[in-house]
Amino acid sequence: MGIITLLTDFGLTDEYVGVMKGVILGINPGAKIVDLTHHVPAQSIRAASFILKTSYDYFPAGTVHVAVVDPHVGSERKILAVKMRDHYFLSPDNGLLVPLLEDAQDPLIVSIANHELCLPFISHTFHGRDIFAPVAAHLSLGLDLEKLGPSLPFEDIQKFEQSREEQKDELLLGQVVWADHFGNLLTTVSQAGLKIFTQGRSLDDLSIEINGHKISGIVDTYVQAHPGSLVALIGSRGFLEIAVSMGNAKEQLQAGPGARVAISFSR
Amino acid sequence: MGIITLLTDFGLTDEYVGVMKGVILGINPGAKIVDLTHHVPAQSIRAASFILKTSYDYFPAGTVHVAVVDPHVGSERKILAVKMRDHYFLSPDNGLLVPLLEDAQDPLIVSIANHELCLPFISHTFHGRDIFAPVAAHLSLGLDLEKLGPSLPFEDIQKFEQSREEQKDELLLGQVVWADHFGNLLTTVSQAGLKIFTQGRSLDDLSIEINGHKISGIVDTYVQAHPGSLVALIGSRGFLEIAVSMGNAKEQLQAGPGARVAISFSR
Amino acid sequence: MGIITLLTDFGLTDEYVGVMKGVILGINPGAKIVDLTHHVPAQSIRAASFILKTSYDYFPAGTVHVAVVDPHVGSERKILAVKMRDHYFLSPDNGLLVPLLEDAQDPLIVSIANHELCLPFISHTFHGRDIFAPVAAHLSLGLDLEKLGPSLPFEDIQKFEQSREEQKDELLLGQVVWADHFGNLLTTVSQAGLKIFTQGRSLDDLSIEINGHKISGIVDTYVQAHPGSLVALIGSRGFLEIAVSMGNAKEQLQAGPGARVAISFSR
Repeated sequence: MGIITLLTDFGLTDEYVGVMKGVILGINPGAKIVDLTHHVPAQSIRAASFILKTSYDYFPAGTVHVAVVDPHVGSERKILAVKMRDHYFLSPDNGLLVPLLEDAQDPLIVSIANHELCLPFISHTFHGRDIFAPVAAHLSLGLDLEKLGPSLPFEDIQKFEQSREEQKDELLLGQVVWADHFGNLLTTVSQAGLKIFTQGRSLDDLSIEINGHKISGIVDTYVQAHPGSLVALIGSRGFLEIAVSMGNAKEQLQAGPGARVAISFSR
Repeated sequence: MGIITLLTDFGLTDEYVGVMKGVILGINPGAKIVDLTHHVPAQSIRAASFILKTSYDYFPAGTVHVAVVDPHVGSERKILAVKMRDHYFLSPDNGLLVPLLEDAQDPLIVSIANHELCLPFISHTFHGRDIFAPVAAHLSLGLDLEKLGPSLPFEDIQKFEQSREEQKDELLLGQVVWADHFGNLLTTVSQAGLKIFTQGRSLDDLSIEINGHKISGIVDTYVQAHPGSLVALIGSRGFLEIAVSMGNAKEQLQAGPGARVAISFSR
Repeated sequence: MGIITLLTDFGLTDEYVGVMKGVILGINPGAKIVDLTHHVPAQSIRAASFILKTSYDYFPAGTVHVAVVDPHVGSERKILAVKMRDHYFLSPDNGLLVPLLEDAQDPLIVSIANHELCLPFISHTFHGRDIFAPVAAHLSLGLDLEKLGPSLPFEDIQKFEQSREEQKDELLLGQVVWADHFGNLLTTVSQAGLKIFTQGRSLDDLSIEINGHKISGIVDTYVQAHPGSLVALIGSRGFLEIAVSMGNAKEQLQAGPGARVAISFSR
């Protein structure tokens, strides 16, 4: 056994993901491999980071999560292996794991250096196949993280500028990080952040502004509103989403990743 | 063991399907999960229903089929669990399972009420993860359907207007329900319906009309016709399909779901 | 156990691939099924052939590879089962396996004739489900290839005109065979062919011409060049690729499958 999840920007047009699975099964024939998604926008570390952080926890303890969004493959960038809350994570050292690590207590971080666990020939352009897949397979078989390479303090890994929710005067500010398959706009505004901002006042009194449109209050479900109307709700990932009931918010608002969201009390 | 199929309109851009698999494997680590398709047109109950009905039977007895096309997620709509011909089915109570149930003898239908089998926190917008996935996992482990909730008579479940084949005077009428990846147009006209209509006369004498185009006779295979020519044939699902030999009927005819098909004897 | 890979032009919009998996699991419940890709351009035998040849070897010995790109399904074309280098292959007799077979020593080739191993009813249009899936499942359980049908000499199977690299005077000529998800252009020029052509001279002195653009030298990685600049490199499949650092070569060059590549020494 051993569950391995794969999160990449490789798409499914090519055989890249399939080949990674072949390498994994050659080392751990009992591995259960789950595609998280391979349609992260090309080289979008931010989106991959968000998806991984809000989904890893739905997998059982011991799962190995492989996240390969790697614009600098072939350069001297490190590859990280992390143990955190009984889950394992593999990712290029490009900031992808930082939001996860910031919330963790005593994560174990190592830089992969033991090439005996990789494929015999390591290409310059496909570390997913040559490094990530075999190392994930070995971890799923119970390999100690320490066998992979030297440990690294959190301070020494790469960060990237994150856009988080931010309270500014009377406003709670965030931005769109992802438009899903239905055109729902997922924002950086968390349920927890909203709770601090509202301090017990009703969510009905909030006003949400995005791309010049105003939404009054936060509903529980898409269907609470008239078909075609714009709504704000706490989505299934625990973050504020902007949606159109029975419709597509991305198209209707012409808004995507990066669009600003401002929340205030209407009165 | 235990096979679980997933049929949704979630697409593969997001992590939704992957997360459902994480929940399933957390409960039944031995489950075999098969994606039927996640590209049902958004909220098209009719297409999902058709696909499920024509494909479930290719899976072994005991398989659990999860079909989530659920425009009313978060409303008071019920969730159904069905046992029928040694297969299990989970779906919102929106008519999706009706065509299957109409052909079944003594199906067992229950309305899911036992939330102890679901995730501890049930969101308003992602019952696929919070209810369907865990319940499917428990069923794949052998849980009795009756443990899920009270049984329901067929009369009490939601129906939706179906478009079936229909004989009218000298015509057999149907419509396009799906355009596949190759542009082949799948219709509601069944092999059985054709048999009744023709009453032993030759399929070669039939005339098929769609969007102003006429096709003479029904062929056995795409390759029986000249490349580029329009053909009608009984597809692999047992229904009439309109295709272009070595080409794309959807594009050539500019026809999609809803397009009318009329069959007559040319004489 | 038993690993089965699937390579088709079926896409993932329909339930075709899911249904094939149902048939496989009904025969071998322990099969591990891996999607290589289902997005081969419709009916492109050449692309499927290339992908299979450069990826099968990353799977463990004993794997059964099913490749269904089959424009002549339903005609009298044969279906081949091959054992080669401890791997098994199933494909229509349309040339798809030829590049693999040309490099093999003593491959065993049979023409599938034993319909007892197939589904009871064989449709005219979906042999993937009715023949390929059940036969693959039986092979993954250890069935002898000879039980499938009579053996066939290599001379008797269908060939198709392949475009390989070709040395002509002072030029090494090839063509683009595939544009991947990132827009990288994969060519028929192999690492081995380049080695013969250069005869020890430096790769830095090469000049690569494609669609009127010239590239000087071959780099090791995408990131060695300035973002936005055109580069040539040996890709992870062991063939020359044309790429744009942090960009999309397919779009920038307006080049796709069939585009000519000419390599010379600039001196």
